[in-house]
Amino acid sequence: MNSRIEKDTMGDVPVPADKYWGAQTQRSKQNFKIGGENMKMPIEIVRAFAILKKAAAQTNYELGVLDQEKAEVISKVCDEIIAGDHDDQFPLVIWQTGSGTQSNMNVNEVVANRSHVLLGGKLDDPQKKIHPNDDVNKSQSSNDTFPTAMHIATYTKIVEETIPKITTLRDTLDSKAKAFVDVVKIGRTHFMDATPLTLGHEFSGYVSQLDHGLKALDNTLPHLSELALGGTAVGTGLNTPEGYAPMVADKIAQFSGHAFISAKNKFEALAAHDAIVETSGALKQLAVSIMKIANDIRMLSSGPRSGIGEILIPENEPGSSIMPGKVNPTQCEALTMVCAQVIGNDTAISIGGMNGHFELNVFKPMMAYNLLTSATLLGDACLSFEKHCAIGIEPNHSVIKDKLEKSLMLVTALNTHIGYENAAKIAKKAHKEGTTLREAALALELLTNEQFDQWVVPENMTGRLSKTP
Amino acid sequence: MNSRIEKDTMGDVPVPADKYWGAQTQRSKQNFKIGGENMKMPIEIVRAFAILKKAAAQTNYELGVLDQEKAEVISKVCDEIIAGDHDDQFPLVIWQTGSGTQSNMNVNEVVANRSHVLLGGKLDDPQKKIHPNDDVNKSQSSNDTFPTAMHIATYTKIVEETIPKITTLRDTLDSKAKAFVDVVKIGRTHFMDATPLTLGHEFSGYVSQLDHGLKALDNTLPHLSELALGGTAVGTGLNTPEGYAPMVADKIAQFSGHAFISAKNKFEALAAHDAIVETSGALKQLAVSIMKIANDIRMLSSGPRSGIGEILIPENEPGSSIMPGKVNPTQCEALTMVCAQVIGNDTAISIGGMNGHFELNVFKPMMAYNLLTSATLLGDACLSFEKHCAIGIEPNHSVIKDKLEKSLMLVTALNTHIGYENAAKIAKKAHKEGTTLREAALALELLTNEQFDQWVVPENMTGRLSKTP
Amino acid sequence: MNSRIEKDTMGDVPVPADKYWGAQTQRSKQNFKIGGENMKMPIEIVRAFAILKKAAAQTNYELGVLDQEKAEVISKVCDEIIAGDHDDQFPLVIWQTGSGTQSNMNVNEVVANRSHVLLGGKLDDPQKKIHPNDDVNKSQSSNDTFPTAMHIATYTKIVEETIPKITTLRDTLDSKAKAFVDVVKIGRTHFMDATPLTLGHEFSGYVSQLDHGLKALDNTLPHLSELALGGTAVGTGLNTPEGYAPMVADKIAQFSGHAFISAKNKFEALAAHDAIVETSGALKQLAVSIMKIANDIRMLSSGPRSGIGEILIPENEPGSSIMPGKVNPTQCEALTMVCAQVIGNDTAISIGGMNGHFELNVFKPMMAYNLLTSATLLGDACLSFEKHCAIGIEPNHSVIKDKLEKSLMLVTALNTHIGYENAAKIAKKAHKEGTTLREAALALELLTNEQFDQWVVPENMTGRLSKTP
Amino acid sequence: MNSRIEKDTMGDVPVPADKYWGAQTQRSKQNFKIGGENMKMPIEIVRAFAILKKAAAQTNYELGVLDQEKAEVISKVCDEIIAGDHDDQFPLVIWQTGSGTQSNMNVNEVVANRSHVLLGGKLDDPQKKIHPNDDVNKSQSSNDTFPTAMHIATYTKIVEETIPKITTLRDTLDSKAKAFVDVVKIGRTHFMDATPLTLGHEFSGYVSQLDHGLKALDNTLPHLSELALGGTAVGTGLNTPEGYAPMVADKIAQFSGHAFISAKNKFEALAAHDAIVETSGALKQLAVSIMKIANDIRMLSSGPRSGIGEILIPENEPGSSIMPGKVNPTQCEALTMVCAQVIGNDTAISIGGMNGHFELNVFKPMMAYNLLTSATLLGDACLSFEKHCAIGIEPNHSVIKDKLEKSLMLVTALNTHIGYENAAKIAKKAHKEGTTLREAALALELLTNEQFDQWVVPENMTGRLSKTP
Repeated sequence: MNSRIEKDTMGDVPVPADKYWGAQTQRSKQNFKIGGENMKMPIEIVRAFAILKKAAAQTNYELGVLDQEKAEVISKVCDEIIAGDHDDQFPLVIWQTGSGTQSNMNVNEVVANRSHVLLGGKLDDPQKKIHPNDDVNKSQSSNDTFPTAMHIATYTKIVEETIPKITTLRDTLDSKAKAFVDVVKIGRTHFMDATPLTLGHEFSGYVSQLDHGLKALDNTLPHLSELALGGTAVGTGLNTPEGYAPMVADKIAQFSGHAFISAKNKFEALAAHDAIVETSGALKQLAVSIMKIANDIRMLSSGPRSGIGEILIPENEPGSSIMPGKVNPTQCEALTMVCAQVIGNDTAISIGGMNGHFELNVFKPMMAYNLLTSATLLGDACLSFEKHCAIGIEPNHSVIKDKLEKSLMLVTALNTHIGYENAAKIAKKAHKEGTTLREAALALELLTNEQFDQWVVPENMTGRLSKTP
Repeated sequence: MNSRIEKDTMGDVPVPADKYWGAQTQRSKQNFKIGGENMKMPIEIVRAFAILKKAAAQTNYELGVLDQEKAEVISKVCDEIIAGDHDDQFPLVIWQTGSGTQSNMNVNEVVANRSHVLLGGKLDDPQKKIHPNDDVNKSQSSNDTFPTAMHIATYTKIVEETIPKITTLRDTLDSKAKAFVDVVKIGRTHFMDATPLTLGHEFSGYVSQLDHGLKALDNTLPHLSELALGGTAVGTGLNTPEGYAPMVADKIAQFSGHAFISAKNKFEALAAHDAIVETSGALKQLAVSIMKIANDIRMLSSGPRSGIGEILIPENEPGSSIMPGKVNPTQCEALTMVCAQVIGNDTAISIGGMNGHFELNVFKPMMAYNLLTSATLLGDACLSFEKHCAIGIEPNHSVIKDKLEKSLMLVTALNTHIGYENAAKIAKKAHKEGTTLREAALALELLTNEQFDQWVVPENMTGRLSKTP
Repeated sequence: MNSRIEKDTMGDVPVPADKYWGAQTQRSKQNFKIGGENMKMPIEIVRAFAILKKAAAQTNYELGVLDQEKAEVISKVCDEIIAGDHDDQFPLVIWQTGSGTQSNMNVNEVVANRSHVLLGGKLDDPQKKIHPNDDVNKSQSSNDTFPTAMHIATYTKIVEETIPKITTLRDTLDSKAKAFVDVVKIGRTHFMDATPLTLGHEFSGYVSQLDHGLKALDNTLPHLSELALGGTAVGTGLNTPEGYAPMVADKIAQFSGHAFISAKNKFEALAAHDAIVETSGALKQLAVSIMKIANDIRMLSSGPRSGIGEILIPENEPGSSIMPGKVNPTQCEALTMVCAQVIGNDTAISIGGMNGHFELNVFKPMMAYNLLTSATLLGDACLSFEKHCAIGIEPNHSVIKDKLEKSLMLVTALNTHIGYENAAKIAKKAHKEGTTLREAALALELLTNEQFDQWVVPENMTGRLSKTP
Repeated sequence: MNSRIEKDTMGDVPVPADKYWGAQTQRSKQNFKIGGENMKMPIEIVRAFAILKKAAAQTNYELGVLDQEKAEVISKVCDEIIAGDHDDQFPLVIWQTGSGTQSNMNVNEVVANRSHVLLGGKLDDPQKKIHPNDDVNKSQSSNDTFPTAMHIATYTKIVEETIPKITTLRDTLDSKAKAFVDVVKIGRTHFMDATPLTLGHEFSGYVSQLDHGLKALDNTLPHLSELALGGTAVGTGLNTPEGYAPMVADKIAQFSGHAFISAKNKFEALAAHDAIVETSGALKQLAVSIMKIANDIRMLSSGPRSGIGEILIPENEPGSSIMPGKVNPTQCEALTMVCAQVIGNDTAISIGGMNGHFELNVFKPMMAYNLLTSATLLGDACLSFEKHCAIGIEPNHSVIKDKLEKSLMLVTALNTHIGYENAAKIAKKAHKEGTTLREAALALELLTNEQFDQWVVPENMTGRLSKTP
């Protein structure tokens, strides 16, 4: 490998000759061999850094602490990074310094060196025209840039991907709830036969869960929209020009297209990441909800001959390498695995969140990684489930009808006519003797055939609330 | 033990002669010997049941399905239960049927039998004037009453106790933030010396954490205010009179003094308890925040001679059974233990929440117990901490001053004057040689004595944001 | 309330006149109003303290640092505490100082004052004949006594209750596995119909899970048997006589009847509670296993008419307050709720475990409480489940037979005869047309009627491993 | 993209012309767009599959159900996969079917098609010489191969990497414990000054934690060494030849070099993954331990001027992008972030583990991924920490000495001479007046100057246990 010498305040470091990064990136690469290729700092964080470096450069220029040429070239390189032109310049792993200092320096170094080249310099010039700390990092610290990048990256992911994808699933389930509004079926409580409802009712419950979950997620966004930038090293804003914090937040909002604001309290914004904990908590809630929904669909579609079998789901692939003709609820499985992961990630995030000390929380990269992963996986899995499963769900009418007719829990309709205890006698007799409710009721002489016809009507038993679902 | 015979649809059961409960309570007592005395269904749930039973009786009366005498006597007994007159009539444990059916029946039986006595009957009359199912449980099911009781009990606890108690702590920390606004001290990032800030800044960060956490908790209340009552067995409202659900919710709101409403979707309200998950998630977030705060205070007060020692906390008790004169941050310890418990409870709640099947979640008592416990413990511990620790926190001025003066990180103020790299040289030299920054700076001839005086002023380094905290 | 004055190194405190406890207990009672009556330090911890105080007194006497009269009276009082004579003398809550110092002092004070009375003194004597620190706590510190009490209490609970109760369930499941060895039934993978196995096979899997889980729990006992006593304040054994640590551990082993030993490294034993984490981890594993088992049984017994319904479970109580005649798998529900709690408690314990600092972990009471609770609940719930559910499980032969006969997955037996792809054609045709496999196979002319008879024999499909289960 | 047509039992699928995979792999690629490139099935799982496919082919040959040519070519391709020659042939993500069927088929297809080519065929031949199901998957099912691959991959990772790397750290800490055995320093309990011990004592506690944790991890290996292979679809071993299960396990043991055995109960081995839960639990315990150790080292090295500062750690990189000359405990940070991740992964694994149904757990890929990740990260991070931090830890003798001398807790040595209460008086007086213990003791006339010299000797206070550490 050809190399050139880069240096930082600790001395010289050989760096690959063709890479823009500098000494500190290289040190980190060598000092943190943890987890390998799959464990790199997410590219969304890198691009969020580019947005904030550009915003900082332009703010610094406008406030008179950075000259125009420098601000322009820094902005230009940031745009290249945002466009994905330099993805291979960010080799560091998540498991580095807990403030993300090294990834901040990785961006500073790449921007500085790439700027130097754009300004006509060469990578192995001993002196560069742009300094990673004094220029690119001006009015900044890792301690406020990294949390800012965390918020930009995760907020953007959630607003642009997670919420729309979950909403797509929500809408499909809602269309199913409406389509199935009249499909009367047996209910199940305690996993046991219960009084009837409609298949639309069941799906409306799922929709309501997602509506509440999406609302809960939305509730977390204001906290997540708060940016630490302007706090610098410990939250005091040392080395920032007057007016910097709100202006740089405005520029980030403008460049990203999202309503970011400057955090009211910068001390919290560096020392704690409760906003990450809060948003992860909402994703966890959604994962809990979705686990229930996907389990129900898995179970409702079970069979084909010995399960519940009340709905049919799309057949997407051969289900078994040994059992010919088998079809499995594989989208439910991928989705519930993702839910388990999101809940596990939430535990990791909570542990990170509780472990800040004094002016800084040093679990930043881990927290950012987990929230980004959860947001990505949950969105992707919901969309995959919607596309390859939910959209194609259909009632299995013959099974539904068959199970409804033989149910014993229709007896509940008799409570208000003959009392709970008499109704129980009928159900127990029918159960014991394997007969229908009607047969048992007549044998016990607790009501007439006509009364049974009039009172035990499954459709009527689902009625009170179906009118106002 | 004297006993009388009670019966249910399964047959006769001997019950203690002097207890109001009936056959189903007794069966549960015998069938679920799990956890013993400390594991009883929380009395808050029982009292919430009494509120809803009273609301149901009066609604049933107003809607013409229960006669006046019955409604009145049921209401009267419910008032007695709310007043705490019958606490010893509810012997069941949390670890029973997952729908809480047996605690619902416990309430139904106690209300029915006590009503019978109030109406002049005797406990061992073979026939009672009030029926636990047909009268007390009219227009209800365990499946909608238990979640209703869960929401009433937990919402009330949180609004009446948890939030006010945490707010008390928040206000005390805020008063400290204001009182300490000018106490300049060394900052710490990565647990290492950093640039200065004020003690008020640090406390303002805690206040901001609690403000965000209380807001997050508040965001969950609308979901928690939704009541399942009116859904009955599976969410359809079977066996309820027209107009029942909103009217009974109104009465519960009136009796409890809190803004409860009827859940828009009763299917969700029985089958999932995402509202419990959501509120627990907010308590978890607060626990994460408070863990950080209490840890900081524990560490800031450490010493007395070999720790950080920048603040003084009240001495409440002898700290050690072996080390004479030792004083410990015991309130921090109780508080952080509570935080760990709240986070653990949240895991239990999440697992319960994800495991609903079809029309019913059968982890209800466990979920209610954990949320109630978390809400109680977190409120109590914050108030205890406020009263016996936070209120008495004072700066240890001499320690603060001493540590500030010898800090090397004041060098950061020089970045904008002599550049990051030169500043680093000074800091490194001083560190290596054990000298002051001034000595190192002058030795390196990087600035004059006068410049040092002018540029390195800790008070100025905390300034940008302290004006707008 | 009548009171007397007690004092400690901080001054005078009024204490209820009729209680044995002293000043420090009273201070804690006043300073930690967290959680109330249900949150008292578990009595098992108190009794474990009595065992260790007695062991310490006798060891101190034998090593010549405590006189005989004192050792004898202390031992006598300890025996009274172990016998349960003084349960009302330990009013403190779990949420106190994280070292448990106040509960240690509660025991020291009660033992000292009760000893004083036994020696003829009066509770309001200004000077007591036995000193809580100098005599009862001699050669001890809270820092080594509390973890010792944690280990004594939890080890004893697990060995005397948890393991035997889970083993009872294991044995009952094993007897079912043997009884059901020939009950051929449809298998289910992905919750979908699969190739057959026997009901005995299914139960043998449960037994194997519990066997592995019990082995894992057993593996943790050596660590849990290590006692911190002898480390005193920081692990060095300061203020203990020569030979103290091993002798006091021997006596504890003798008094408790369990194989306790002195921890090889006392620094770990005070500063970390990895043994608690380890044992809790094994209980968590068992909870994970049991969740699966109880879910299976819940689902296998579902119905009675619209579920899986392959097994019958005992009917213990009326299942529903609104649906007459309903029977629910309530023991499964209590058991799975307990499993969720145990897993949540494990999270709390892990958080406590990771938060030790330097020479002491101060999450001790919380960790002890959670492990004790998990051990109690899991044992109790398994026994309840065994007694009221598992013991009575029976196959529902008609349902099993019916489902087996109509299964499509018997087609797998044809793979080795006609290949996976031809077999798939048969299964798909039968599924699509609602016919039997035989009909589809013959229609496709892929085999003869005789070949079908010979090759598709469910009993033969379960055979390879059933001979060596 | 050039493509060829592949088919499975569901029909034709276009596949990239130059790839060995077939129809089912391609379907999965299209149906599961979840998480993208970073979320691929770990290559360790793929290689474990190659080991087991080779073992199965040779066993099938030896037992007479596969011909020699087929067995040989399959083995050859498996060797190529193990050697890493085909890493780009496995494009599927973790978030697929929960049985891992599609990754099993991916391997089956690649092996079949590559074998066909090795045997002289072409990828677009309509008929291949080796069939993915009938030949490569012979005597197997996804249901037994995937868990087998999980165990092979995770066991190997843990035995070959995790344990040796943690052991390296353990040994380095042990060498430090021995090197620092005489460095007497102040102890800290409750984060407050306590009686002295040696720095070696502190490190010996860390070693003891790791020893116990490694033992706990080792305890889980027998369960993890059990292989499901031979159970096929539901655990019965359908479609396997007599003698297959133990023989194939032997071959896997031989090919991998690890002591794998055939699981005694195949029903458990498919339906539950308690072995994964168990091993993850042990890694969680280690993470809890390591979190404590790394926190201690972070805190002990804090400063350089305003922290604890009793040890010095290596300076590996510039610590701050804004604060010149700052050095941070970055290895502690990476390590504690990893610990948080491992604990979060354990939560995900527990949730997966509890959610098996009947004959199959369908959270397999998620569970395998998390355990592999935890094992990799924990090993890597411990080694990084060892290499770049632990190895270079040195006592900061001047700080240690200074703090020790001014400590008040040396007073504890006086308990046995003048009693706890008198000792407390001395400590309190010295604390209040800011004097030394000696000055306070003499002023109170509780002992003479000579007695003080004789009794208060820090070195003696650390003695009892340091002789038998």
